[in-house]
Amino acid sequence: MEKKLIVINPGLEEELLEKIRTTARQTGCEIAIFNSEEEAGDPIMEAEIIYGHAPKAARQSDHLKWICIPWAGADAFCAPGAIKHAETLLTNSAGAFGLTLSEHALMLTLMLLRREPTYAAAVQENVWLRPVLPQRSIKDSRITLLGAGDIGRHIARRLVPFEPACITAVSRSGKSDEPSFDEMLPQSRLEEVLPRTDVLIMSLPSTPETIDILNERTLSLLPRNAYIVNVGRGTAIDEPALIHALETEQIAGAALDVTKTEPLPAEDPLWKTKNLLLTPHVAGNFAVAYTRQRNVEMFCEDLLRYAEGKPLLHLVDRSLGY
Amino acid sequence: MEKKLIVINPGLEEELLEKIRTTARQTGCEIAIFNSEEEAGDPIMEAEIIYGHAPKAARQSDHLKWICIPWAGADAFCAPGAIKHAETLLTNSAGAFGLTLSEHALMLTLMLLRREPTYAAAVQENVWLRPVLPQRSIKDSRITLLGAGDIGRHIARRLVPFEPACITAVSRSGKSDEPSFDEMLPQSRLEEVLPRTDVLIMSLPSTPETIDILNERTLSLLPRNAYIVNVGRGTAIDEPALIHALETEQIAGAALDVTKTEPLPAEDPLWKTKNLLLTPHVAGNFAVAYTRQRNVEMFCEDLLRYAEGKPLLHLVDRSLGY
Repeated sequence: MEKKLIVINPGLEEELLEKIRTTARQTGCEIAIFNSEEEAGDPIMEAEIIYGHAPKAARQSDHLKWICIPWAGADAFCAPGAIKHAETLLTNSAGAFGLTLSEHALMLTLMLLRREPTYAAAVQENVWLRPVLPQRSIKDSRITLLGAGDIGRHIARRLVPFEPACITAVSRSGKSDEPSFDEMLPQSRLEEVLPRTDVLIMSLPSTPETIDILNERTLSLLPRNAYIVNVGRGTAIDEPALIHALETEQIAGAALDVTKTEPLPAEDPLWKTKNLLLTPHVAGNFAVAYTRQRNVEMFCEDLLRYAEGKPLLHLVDRSLGY
Repeated sequence: MEKKLIVINPGLEEELLEKIRTTARQTGCEIAIFNSEEEAGDPIMEAEIIYGHAPKAARQSDHLKWICIPWAGADAFCAPGAIKHAETLLTNSAGAFGLTLSEHALMLTLMLLRREPTYAAAVQENVWLRPVLPQRSIKDSRITLLGAGDIGRHIARRLVPFEPACITAVSRSGKSDEPSFDEMLPQSRLEEVLPRTDVLIMSLPSTPETIDILNERTLSLLPRNAYIVNVGRGTAIDEPALIHALETEQIAGAALDVTKTEPLPAEDPLWKTKNLLLTPHVAGNFAVAYTRQRNVEMFCEDLLRYAEGKPLLHLVDRSLGY
């Protein structure tokens, strides 16, 4: 019997869907493509492999042997009961987002350092703002990357020619062979690096160890001139503590692409917090063509390996959450 | 008799003024520091060397042997009559601005490609904009740098790790040994490269050959998806032609840090032009500490050479205008 593969299309162009179909043929899969889990209906419960967002099938199916999610943050699928069978393989597409997330992180960092939001507000009113505001440069800034995975590495590589004073990466393991990191520390030493951080760029997965990692205490360790950029997960920041730090000018500013509640409710105080720049979770989505291509390449690579009985490359450790 | 050096302070901190004083002592100069040419008064006409903005002394003084302007664009001082004596040396501080201008250019490029102004307008209204807009990446984009001097080089070096498809630099001479440029063309071949340009980044000096170099005809050669970024001089763009190209969606968007008239009058149509991002000439000023340090270093370097009778490093060719 052929293996059944169901794809829940996350917004892929025909050319990329064709690549998946070709790989399915090569690997002896019977393939069906839908726009949503609802559209797929009951047959999804017969699928051996699912590529896409199918939380119901993950929770209920007895036939599912592998689910690949087309984004990076695997926390929802690592929660107890999110996938019915412990043997079901979970892969994510973390490696596809480093490019777009690092471009977003660099943009937000430069916008904060160069005071762009203040100039933009004046331009809105047809005002040529003077005197010129003090600006800062990435050059000679001490950058701390909280999260040293694919995203952190991409950010670091793009930062290097801006000549920061140093790039310190902090991760759970405290280990990496990325040559763009000047220093690599385990998360247990975060409090040591915060006081010598000019820009803190966060790209953490959402795990029990990262929830509210930026809170009243850790925020208080940052210098007054510090900027914070978060392109990872909204759960990493205690938002009332951040709002307090910004409103009291305990730190210089922040830029968030992610928040705890998304979409952010219209009445949330974050919208109007002082020195806070928001973008609506658009750093790491399918808007950039390269992300879609890379995503499909990664899935097809693993599909070939799956058919050959080789270990998958993009496996998530469900006990770690990433 | 001691050489008289007058400094018109462009906003330098005490530490940097002290560095100038020390170098003045070393080189046997009598130094006086003022905040403006007006404040300096008549004694400025006795100065042998001026570091700073002193257009009146430049036009009228018979004693001036060298004037160093603390910014890059030398066009005003190259105009006929702007400096009374042909033998008076003119230096600029072009090398001090590549860093800050390249950071601004990268920020504007990313903001255009990632549709930041559209998201910012929604955030202004507490709106979490959906659906996500198509975005583009520097990766695989064809970048044309119009202007291949210090600024163009700094931009190219910072672009490289973003993996553009190619970086083509265009300059008057068409020559450069910058390894970050994939291709180097003379200005006479500009029309050949425009149709294969996704992002055009302009950092030209203002000279007769660059005025309105971007006009109805050259704009029409760009593809519909093209973005334009100008951090050089406002004179390089025919603004009504640009407005027309943007309003009719002949190109995708533009970001200008410079305009023909500055400050931009409140009634100028540029303020509200579709898909146009403005910043009020803040890319290359004294707002970043590194610019001030480098500026003073460059002047002091040349002051030592001047005292030793060596050729100055940062000379402007007044016939070329840069």
